[in-house]
Amino acid sequence: MIRAADEAATAISWAGARVLVAGGLGFIGARLACRLVTLGAVVTVVDALEPQAGGNIANVADIRDQATIRIADLGDPALLRDLLPGCDVVFNLAGQTGHLASMVAPLQDLDANCRAPLALLEACRTLAPQVTVVYASTRQVYGRPIVLPVDERHPLAPVDINGVHKAAAEAYHGLYWRVHGLDTRVLRLTNTYGPGMRVKDAKQNFLGLWLRQVLEGRPIELWGGHQRRDFSYVDDTVRALLEAARVPMGQGRILNVGGCPPVSLRELAEQLLAQGGGDGGLVVSPFPSDRERIDIGDYYTDDSLFRGLTGWAPETSLAEGLRATLDYYRAALPLYL
Amino acid sequence: MIRAADEAATAISWAGARVLVAGGLGFIGARLACRLVTLGAVVTVVDALEPQAGGNIANVADIRDQATIRIADLGDPALLRDLLPGCDVVFNLAGQTGHLASMVAPLQDLDANCRAPLALLEACRTLAPQVTVVYASTRQVYGRPIVLPVDERHPLAPVDINGVHKAAAEAYHGLYWRVHGLDTRVLRLTNTYGPGMRVKDAKQNFLGLWLRQVLEGRPIELWGGHQRRDFSYVDDTVRALLEAARVPMGQGRILNVGGCPPVSLRELAEQLLAQGGGDGGLVVSPFPSDRERIDIGDYYTDDSLFRGLTGWAPETSLAEGLRATLDYYRAALPLYL
Repeated sequence: MIRAADEAATAISWAGARVLVAGGLGFIGARLACRLVTLGAVVTVVDALEPQAGGNIANVADIRDQATIRIADLGDPALLRDLLPGCDVVFNLAGQTGHLASMVAPLQDLDANCRAPLALLEACRTLAPQVTVVYASTRQVYGRPIVLPVDERHPLAPVDINGVHKAAAEAYHGLYWRVHGLDTRVLRLTNTYGPGMRVKDAKQNFLGLWLRQVLEGRPIELWGGHQRRDFSYVDDTVRALLEAARVPMGQGRILNVGGCPPVSLRELAEQLLAQGGGDGGLVVSPFPSDRERIDIGDYYTDDSLFRGLTGWAPETSLAEGLRATLDYYRAALPLYL
Repeated sequence: MIRAADEAATAISWAGARVLVAGGLGFIGARLACRLVTLGAVVTVVDALEPQAGGNIANVADIRDQATIRIADLGDPALLRDLLPGCDVVFNLAGQTGHLASMVAPLQDLDANCRAPLALLEACRTLAPQVTVVYASTRQVYGRPIVLPVDERHPLAPVDINGVHKAAAEAYHGLYWRVHGLDTRVLRLTNTYGPGMRVKDAKQNFLGLWLRQVLEGRPIELWGGHQRRDFSYVDDTVRALLEAARVPMGQGRILNVGGCPPVSLRELAEQLLAQGGGDGGLVVSPFPSDRERIDIGDYYTDDSLFRGLTGWAPETSLAEGLRATLDYYRAALPLYL
């Protein structure tokens, strides 16, 4: 990895960079790991393959011989002593993403979304103090937006345990930078979709389940449908993560990353049906009360800070992204059920 | 316990109320437990007597035969199944309070300040959904104030892991109220001092160590000294906790509780020396860098919301409080070393 002495004016070259991707069998993590291999990085993937999360060995089929893959828990100190020294960049995409799941099993969410990243930061501080850590957070930390689009000054008011824990983990990264001088960067991602996402149920994202429903000729089950959201195709999100590690950062190390212009969930479902040739149609159901209590309503992102800093912008339209995703699962669906 | 059917217009009578005090061998918790016994409550104290925390069996000497005392970990599900059903009020004063300690051992702080209160809330939700939970939080969640005095609208920007975890625990309480309907109330306490506080070192509060230094004729070691803080005598804090459980609450269930008018730490040290007859004097040292990085500077509280809701106000001046505290430790110091 090449980094000039004056860090403030430099950028990473990925060729030869030693990169650890935590959660690297998951949806975004695996896509990132594959991209890093293509860019010439020396990639190690760690993933616990926790059954409720998004990890799937099929996601790294293309790089199985070009990356080191460890099925292990991030909380294992021996593992980190083995993997961290000498690392240039750690991307942390490990975690539990389910909102409802976090309300049903909050202590498991605590382990996945607080204990694990905190243990990783502690290990970085002691074993690899020169490393750059990029942490994938979520728009969920904002809760129900009081103003749209949402920029980084929006107050944090999470509506579920998952959001509380992701906000705490963000704060860890801020502290490890300010107090310990660790080079941490946090991206608050919006809804990401694409090949590799969990489709067997709605535990990662409702869109995953919709994809499955369309491909199986079943109706899409839509709750409400009026909510407007922005969606990012996974390759755009991966580029954002790479940029987050690459560019020099100033004081504002927690940055939003959005997606394409917002659409309502109903519009999204209709696009998906049109593209997927799904003949199951739409079934609009009343919002289940346990989900309604933690729903955030409309959300879309103001990510002008990140765009200004990096030049990043989404390159894949929602139509293109949905098409690519459907194409992927037409062949690969059995690997994800 | 008497509570009228229309909860919004009622208040607790403590006579016969079944009350659990978590952290009830600690400084504030034990004082609260003693007061509750006096008021006729049926009190159970749970405390893990974690060596780094403030628990001390001497704190409950007066109520040993009138309360149930369990030395146990709050995270033990069997314990909570035993103690919670039928409880009217839970006061949660368990936790790790050290700021520097939280930076040195962040995962232990996570267990004490996130896992334990979350496990307690989960147990309340399932075993005692009618209970009122009063959680003792801290002004540490605000971090370095950007405006003084600090009211509840001040942004949360904790400067240490302890503050991050206390903020997360506050958020749990808010969620369990909004999502699960559990009657939770949170007080953000300022620096509390008085009989029963940890004095063997500065792990609970620097003022504890100062008390010991004065009583042992040693100099008070002062870092900086210009910082202004408000201090609450423990009996005033205990009254605030009782009020927090007693009065009907509206939407604003996270409330500041301050103390007497702010003084600089140097003024505080001088008052303590004058009252204690300490001949060791003052030694002003440079701020140790590990502490300076997490110092919050000036802090004092705007608690007008809480005062308006409850009629509470401090009754013990700093001079009276310091005198009472010194008197206590003149006899009891050996029990706290």
